Amino acid sequence: MIFLDAAATTPVRREVLDAMWPYLSGEFGNPSSHHTLGEAAATALADARAAVARVLGCRPGEVTFTSGGTEADNLAVKGIALARQAADSTLNRVAISAVEHPAVEESARYLERFHGFTVDVVPVDGTGLVTPRALAAVLRPETALVSIMYANNEVGTVQPVAELADLARAQGIPFHTDAVQAAGWLPLDVKALGVDALSISGHKLGAPKGCGVLYVRGRTRIEPLLHGGGQERGRRSGTENVAGAVGLATALTLAQSAQRQTAQHVAALRDVFIRDVLSSVPGAVLTGHPTERLPSVASFCFPGTSGESVLLELERQGVVCSSGSACAAGSDAPSPVLIAMGYEPEVAQTAVRFSFTASVTAEELAAAADAVGAAVGSVRTLGRR
Amino acid sequence: MIFLDAAATTPVRREVLDAMWPYLSGEFGNPSSHHTLGEAAATALADARAAVARVLGCRPGEVTFTSGGTEADNLAVKGIALARQAADSTLNRVAISAVEHPAVEESARYLERFHGFTVDVVPVDGTGLVTPRALAAVLRPETALVSIMYANNEVGTVQPVAELADLARAQGIPFHTDAVQAAGWLPLDVKALGVDALSISGHKLGAPKGCGVLYVRGRTRIEPLLHGGGQERGRRSGTENVAGAVGLATALTLAQSAQRQTAQHVAALRDVFIRDVLSSVPGAVLTGHPTERLPSVASFCFPGTSGESVLLELERQGVVCSSGSACAAGSDAPSPVLIAMGYEPEVAQTAVRFSFTASVTAEELAAAADAVGAAVGSVRTLGRR
Repeated sequence: MIFLDAAATTPVRREVLDAMWPYLSGEFGNPSSHHTLGEAAATALADARAAVARVLGCRPGEVTFTSGGTEADNLAVKGIALARQAADSTLNRVAISAVEHPAVEESARYLERFHGFTVDVVPVDGTGLVTPRALAAVLRPETALVSIMYANNEVGTVQPVAELADLARAQGIPFHTDAVQAAGWLPLDVKALGVDALSISGHKLGAPKGCGVLYVRGRTRIEPLLHGGGQERGRRSGTENVAGAVGLATALTLAQSAQRQTAQHVAALRDVFIRDVLSSVPGAVLTGHPTERLPSVASFCFPGTSGESVLLELERQGVVCSSGSACAAGSDAPSPVLIAMGYEPEVAQTAVRFSFTASVTAEELAAAADAVGAAVGSVRTLGRR
Repeated sequence: MIFLDAAATTPVRREVLDAMWPYLSGEFGNPSSHHTLGEAAATALADARAAVARVLGCRPGEVTFTSGGTEADNLAVKGIALARQAADSTLNRVAISAVEHPAVEESARYLERFHGFTVDVVPVDGTGLVTPRALAAVLRPETALVSIMYANNEVGTVQPVAELADLARAQGIPFHTDAVQAAGWLPLDVKALGVDALSISGHKLGAPKGCGVLYVRGRTRIEPLLHGGGQERGRRSGTENVAGAVGLATALTLAQSAQRQTAQHVAALRDVFIRDVLSSVPGAVLTGHPTERLPSVASFCFPGTSGESVLLELERQGVVCSSGSACAAGSDAPSPVLIAMGYEPEVAQTAVRFSFTASVTAEELAAAADAVGAAVGSVRTLGRR
């Protein structure tokens, strides 16, 4: 099997399982307990937090462990917007891009339905980019929060986060970025990015499902999503998933320490793959930005096919990929991301996304490109009968 | 070490780790993905859900996997109350007991602060019991939800949940119970209990931290806490923690299949331990109900000591326990649970909770009772100097 669906999820790395193991076995304490077992767990959690902080270039107290990327996004968007609104009731708008993950988009819609917010949607261009000018056009004195993803999960387009965040900061508006797809592939220094909040998911970078991180800058006020025992400095109650936190810290450290080399190496493989696919499939269209894109994502539309048929044919040939986000897999509706980018629904429905782990090889991608040519050809032939 | 702090957390059972292992290694698919890897994960998740449903006597579609007990409690209390209020704006009260876990109490306070709810607190008697009469006194036409825990985490008192739920149901009010401490020790058939929602935490019964379950009956409307990709039938977005769900299902099945025998066996050991402690410590007071209590919890006040000093002395002697809930460990404030039960603050501050796993032995408890006598004696002697 050639696994090219790493944007959906990744295998847990061996080093990560090894690091987690003690906390799934003998060191099972509750970090809140004041005895040696509890203290050992608390120390492990503190070490994991410090490791994440080193990667992000922030203080450990700015790192909140969550149950995943979705919770981190929900906590950032709802938590910051609600805390700001509670302090100043005129702050009742949030600005998000037109290509956000549903975890951000639906959190904003929740604020609209239950808390009287208005959601300003910043359009993207044909490559999926949010331009500073487009963001500037929606910012208002009432904007409580801007949330714009670092890199898109369907087409891989990388946003100019530092520039966008600058714009928000100049107006005193907190800026959150969903870095779930970016982590492991792009720099994550929160100071260089200039963001106030940043979400990461463990299972996208070699840690298990069920763990994530939300960075929240300094004294940014945030209303918790999970209330209760007051863990995570009151920002996220619930007994901490110690093993998950240790796993995430290990995976993030491993991925980011090799980020620059990995990105360069995989981007080169990606470019060959894109060239091969475009040359072997007549009419194939690369979706997303040609250069400002994740090293790990090659996404296309294959007009005259259906994405799902191509996927089935590819899987028969041993290539595992997806039509777009896993959340929407199997849905007949065309991707809202591609629609926002200006694609016609019948073209958007032919989307196929190939996403790579750091260990993808040139041979795998060459074989996959051949399979794509054959699969699209076969689907088109069947369609014509 | 004699570990008597199982109400804080428990070691992961070997069978649970074995069941989880495939989903932490080769079977790493995202259950939402439409390819063989994803489908294998989806099947594992469906099997775990069916197993939990068998234990609870409900349909698999009524089981929502969460990141733990706190999330399950937050989802139940906020989700049901908000959905009811959205359908009928006059439904703006919630009723909770005076001894709820902070995950329920603070969720109710959130509804008060952000959604205009009034929280009606049902008092408890000196044993920590909520009487049906006390609940009846607070119910009103505007009550959107009742949430009363199955068994208390600090003193082990078991509420007459079926009776209380009947009362709510007679008035058309949904009833949620936090069964985090009850799971593994008490019957969990949701039909016999008559509850509309019930929370379970994995790490309290031999599964890892970071997984939980919320049962929600039939078509009960519930506003999600985590919005996004629409997993868990839209009730809880976020990539499912497949390994955690499998672990929780395995642990719950193991614990509940032996529940009756384990409860009987451990309750007998507990009663001997209580008798031994009461006879070896002059002035010791058993807190909580004398008979309607968890088989696994023996809790005391030792007037004339401080709970924390006794704990330190016990740990020196190899006995690990706690002053009450782990969340509040190290806090100097007397337990709100004991205050609600009528204890004076200076007595409440002397609380010590011993909580057992199913594999606790008579020998361990005999040794622990001796250690308690010695520890209290030593603390009292020091105090008198």
